[in-house]
Amino acid sequence: MSKPRPGENVVLVGNKPTMNYVLATVIQFNQGADKVVIKARGRAISKAVDAAEIVKTRFLMNQVEITDVKIGTEKVGEGEQSRNVSTIEITLERKK
Amino acid sequence: MSKPRPGENVVLVGNKPTMNYVLATVIQFNQGADKVVIKARGRAISKAVDAAEIVKTRFLMNQVEITDVKIGTEKVGEGEQSRNVSTIEITLERKK
Repeated sequence: MSKPRPGENVVLVGNKPTMNYVLATVIQFNQGADKVVIKARGRAISKAVDAAEIVKTRFLMNQVEITDVKIGTEKVGEGEQSRNVSTIEITLERKK
Repeated sequence: MSKPRPGENVVLVGNKPTMNYVLATVIQFNQGADKVVIKARGRAISKAVDAAEIVKTRFLMNQVEITDVKIGTEKVGEGEQSRNVSTIEITLERKK
């Protein structure tokens, strides 16, 4: 997962209910962000897709669009404990 | 989720172990496919990303690349029972 760049609005999806991440994203747009990136790893990937789709189809319908979806692999842990996890980054942008 | 077009190679990810879908994808490439689309809905989305990443980084390293990732929403069930589920379609293509 790439490090957030300055001024980039990121929502990192974890173990909380999906709606928490939906609201976090909506709040960032309502505070003036033009672009929000929803990121997740491992099992939270499905939840990140749900959150992005709920923002797009229910909360900010016709206002934001999904402009990029990237998937990747990241190494977690050290030495023998290390394993690979999948990642996703979903970019939502305010429609021009 | 879009209907498979004639000649399109699709792997639909469900409840089986991830490795089943990895192997289904690798077999399609080994049988001459230039393009395989891995599709999933709901909780299986994380598994679809894992399968695509494992194919790309472990089995067909330097031979295939992820050329497109689409996410969407689909209605499942009828009437009051109907609900929305998220979907993903990951396109892998043989490198030219």
